[in-house]
Amino acid sequence: MSTEAIRTVTCDLTFQVEEAAELVFQVVAAQSAGWADEESLAVLVDGEPASSVTEIGDPYGARIHIIQAEAGRLSLSYRARIEAAGQNGPTGADGPSAAYERQVYLRPSRYCPSDHLIGFAAAQFGTGQHVGARVAAITRWIRQRIGYVPGSSTVHDSAEDTLLTGMGTCRDFAHLGIALCRATGIPARFVAVYAPGLSPMDFHAVFEAFQDGRWNVYDATGLAPRSSLVRIITGRDAADAAFAATISGSANLEAIDVSATVEGNLPTDDSSLIVEMA
Amino acid sequence: MSTEAIRTVTCDLTFQVEEAAELVFQVVAAQSAGWADEESLAVLVDGEPASSVTEIGDPYGARIHIIQAEAGRLSLSYRARIEAAGQNGPTGADGPSAAYERQVYLRPSRYCPSDHLIGFAAAQFGTGQHVGARVAAITRWIRQRIGYVPGSSTVHDSAEDTLLTGMGTCRDFAHLGIALCRATGIPARFVAVYAPGLSPMDFHAVFEAFQDGRWNVYDATGLAPRSSLVRIITGRDAADAAFAATISGSANLEAIDVSATVEGNLPTDDSSLIVEMA
Amino acid sequence: MSTEAIRTVTCDLTFQVEEAAELVFQVVAAQSAGWADEESLAVLVDGEPASSVTEIGDPYGARIHIIQAEAGRLSLSYRARIEAAGQNGPTGADGPSAAYERQVYLRPSRYCPSDHLIGFAAAQFGTGQHVGARVAAITRWIRQRIGYVPGSSTVHDSAEDTLLTGMGTCRDFAHLGIALCRATGIPARFVAVYAPGLSPMDFHAVFEAFQDGRWNVYDATGLAPRSSLVRIITGRDAADAAFAATISGSANLEAIDVSATVEGNLPTDDSSLIVEMA
Amino acid sequence: MSTEAIRTVTCDLTFQVEEAAELVFQVVAAQSAGWADEESLAVLVDGEPASSVTEIGDPYGARIHIIQAEAGRLSLSYRARIEAAGQNGPTGADGPSAAYERQVYLRPSRYCPSDHLIGFAAAQFGTGQHVGARVAAITRWIRQRIGYVPGSSTVHDSAEDTLLTGMGTCRDFAHLGIALCRATGIPARFVAVYAPGLSPMDFHAVFEAFQDGRWNVYDATGLAPRSSLVRIITGRDAADAAFAATISGSANLEAIDVSATVEGNLPTDDSSLIVEMA
Repeated sequence: MSTEAIRTVTCDLTFQVEEAAELVFQVVAAQSAGWADEESLAVLVDGEPASSVTEIGDPYGARIHIIQAEAGRLSLSYRARIEAAGQNGPTGADGPSAAYERQVYLRPSRYCPSDHLIGFAAAQFGTGQHVGARVAAITRWIRQRIGYVPGSSTVHDSAEDTLLTGMGTCRDFAHLGIALCRATGIPARFVAVYAPGLSPMDFHAVFEAFQDGRWNVYDATGLAPRSSLVRIITGRDAADAAFAATISGSANLEAIDVSATVEGNLPTDDSSLIVEMA
Repeated sequence: MSTEAIRTVTCDLTFQVEEAAELVFQVVAAQSAGWADEESLAVLVDGEPASSVTEIGDPYGARIHIIQAEAGRLSLSYRARIEAAGQNGPTGADGPSAAYERQVYLRPSRYCPSDHLIGFAAAQFGTGQHVGARVAAITRWIRQRIGYVPGSSTVHDSAEDTLLTGMGTCRDFAHLGIALCRATGIPARFVAVYAPGLSPMDFHAVFEAFQDGRWNVYDATGLAPRSSLVRIITGRDAADAAFAATISGSANLEAIDVSATVEGNLPTDDSSLIVEMA
Repeated sequence: MSTEAIRTVTCDLTFQVEEAAELVFQVVAAQSAGWADEESLAVLVDGEPASSVTEIGDPYGARIHIIQAEAGRLSLSYRARIEAAGQNGPTGADGPSAAYERQVYLRPSRYCPSDHLIGFAAAQFGTGQHVGARVAAITRWIRQRIGYVPGSSTVHDSAEDTLLTGMGTCRDFAHLGIALCRATGIPARFVAVYAPGLSPMDFHAVFEAFQDGRWNVYDATGLAPRSSLVRIITGRDAADAAFAATISGSANLEAIDVSATVEGNLPTDDSSLIVEMA
Repeated sequence: MSTEAIRTVTCDLTFQVEEAAELVFQVVAAQSAGWADEESLAVLVDGEPASSVTEIGDPYGARIHIIQAEAGRLSLSYRARIEAAGQNGPTGADGPSAAYERQVYLRPSRYCPSDHLIGFAAAQFGTGQHVGARVAAITRWIRQRIGYVPGSSTVHDSAEDTLLTGMGTCRDFAHLGIALCRATGIPARFVAVYAPGLSPMDFHAVFEAFQDGRWNVYDATGLAPRSSLVRIITGRDAADAAFAATISGSANLEAIDVSATVEGNLPTDDSSLIVEMA
């Protein structure tokens, strides 16, 4: 099932920069997400264009923006209309090999310490050969067992905290899915996305599992149809996918406004379907 | 079901005291465990009686020994023949009230951080009114899901580590049982015991859950019959029940030998039975 | 330095009890805190006296109240005017022996996992004989290194989180002090108190260290003079000292109002002084 | 200071493969480590060449070997004589950009959860502009404060455990250095190496910090001169750099023998020097 819809996404962020700061933003759609027939990114400090905005690519087709900002009011405004799905998968021809990626995404990471819950995962889900059934079982179990409770977790929480406390938000649901997959031998990774249909609207996070040579997308929250998602950035976990981070200096987020819509009707999602994400 | 058997327990410990040390031992049978018709405790340093051995009682009928030892080779030798069960339960008439104990043993503790796994426990075992069925379900689940693997855990591990890694020893099994009970609203506590029938022989640990006004004993390891156990000390978790600890100075355990036998045939244990422990 | 002042403390709590609940409150002044010449505790559910209020004592002179409440609006109102200090120390004549208490408060606990930070504590503060100097150094270090930041911690955080994140509130400051004391061989315990002079007013937490046969009080936050504190309850850490907890059923705290005043001028506190707390 | 010496490294591993397994090995010298004028890798199962050995490159010039092995006795034997340093730094021309790498190695990872110890790190080491002085201070502090104690840590331990327990091995020393660097704003990464001069001989681990546009190598253990190290693999932490891992099936390590020598005299190392590693 491929991504066909025309989607429009926007993101407006306002920061109060207390002292000259280096900021990193990961908010623009990945190149693989589709062909953007309209796209703009504006970064202003006190109404003037920021003096330094550098775009760097990651090996997976994402675009990271590094901004040197003087003290003042920084506003970042992004808009894109994404026409059609690009090539499937985030990895361009020059990215890491699939064999290498498979290794990387089996490894434990900051918020997905899969090495430490192998025992639980193996006893609960087995480690047999039916990868697709296992990922589906993991996703279903998370949806049944974990409560979606805004404010219930902190930025330091890992998949273990989510499993034990039984609560979290989209980020935590994705981390737990990834950790359980890896712990049962399935490569899995984190994807930050724009999600048409999400309510309340915000950035969203899902995960991908490697299955039959492809990366299929799963969302244990069930909060938005997978086929309309717009990939922003792919990584091991939320440590790789923060929409904003302060590298040096001091800046406080004051306002955030995200939107994501799809042209026509919002598609429905059937959790039994295999969905790939561009 | 009460404890009737005559049991003989022994414990021989040897320490190399590197520099003058204060040591604490919790190895003698609790007063509630039965009437000891023969009992001896000898502590020697380089073959001479230790200069200072102080016995203090805890509120639950246990006896703690504090020893000031000069540098040298310390040997502790304990033997007891316990004739018949004493009064049921570890608490003497002057101990804390049952109402107070119930509060204390609902609280999270060092190795049983029940506050942090309430979500998991409630989803897995419910929090309804059938306390006995719930403890039995918890005990059964631990036996099915956790592997008894000597050397798989460390002294810093908590019930959360055991749940996640799926491995541990008797101490870890008891911690997990306690944590899951407390998290579902059942007071539970840790008991260090001598365990006739245990193989290989060593100190053992089990847990008690408060049910219908009584403390019933559970052992998810199933390694020794509950009705022959000899209580040493009762507490929140292993932090309260170490057989030996160094308060100051430096001492290394060099040898440990524990034995526990029952006169006549070792009783069988049926995990569906309710067992109280003297 | 003893506690002389006449202090008045009040506490008003409102809960919405969603379904019949068993609640525990630890809000009244400990008997050791002084002679209460006026004291009242009222518990109403929807304006009528609660059907069941049970007071149980703990081994340290505290009074715990257990309340069975039907669904409705529960209000608890406590007032006390405490005339003069009672006997020093929380332990009445029938409480646990000092020798036993010393053992208990050396042990690691839920929020003070001192076994796990012995290495850090020993390297930072040493383990030599000058207990008073060591506690003072620990308290000073916490005040210098940890930021008092309301909202920065969660109820699951331990002293290790506080040490690493460098932030917390009074509870966290006390936990870190206790954990570092125990890790360097000094018995230490948690005390929930009313604190005249605290701003903003709320319940407060401090710790006591065992030194020269006495329990001296320390407060790394420095937010209120130690000599006016009114002890509520003493324990291993916050797990023993919560002002309110739900044992069963469902109840949500809706309002809390605490006050604590001293007759005459608020005393000053000199952190170099040894202060005992009644 | 560059790497000039001719170094010979060997590695012999024996596994008992219990059931058909997929194994990953990261033991051969990175291409950047120098020009290997003699190099061999042999993988035998029960004395016959393994049926499937696949080499994949990582983005940093390392070579990873994936082996499908039937049940039996697997032996891997690697030998290399490395003539002269190759280009400095592990990153080939086609690897990720320096700007991207700098971002990646500021992020928290499984064993280096730098987001959680920013408070401690900032208070202890500051976050000012003198990067070189800060890394040196971090490395010195680790050497002074952490005991090198074989067997004191487990494969699940993170830099936080090392900081708190005050003990660890080379892997732990590297993790703590990395975590403290990242927490104070310095990109840092883990390097698995062959280390001539190490005693007892084994695989070794060090870390690199990004400083003045270069990756300089630090080793808080001080156990081997940095200028003779032979890079195997570079990553976020030990999760990326295990010398062997089982992806599926079952295999147990039975023997390991590592050697690393330098032609001529072992160089001395002066911890005040900046050393880059090929």
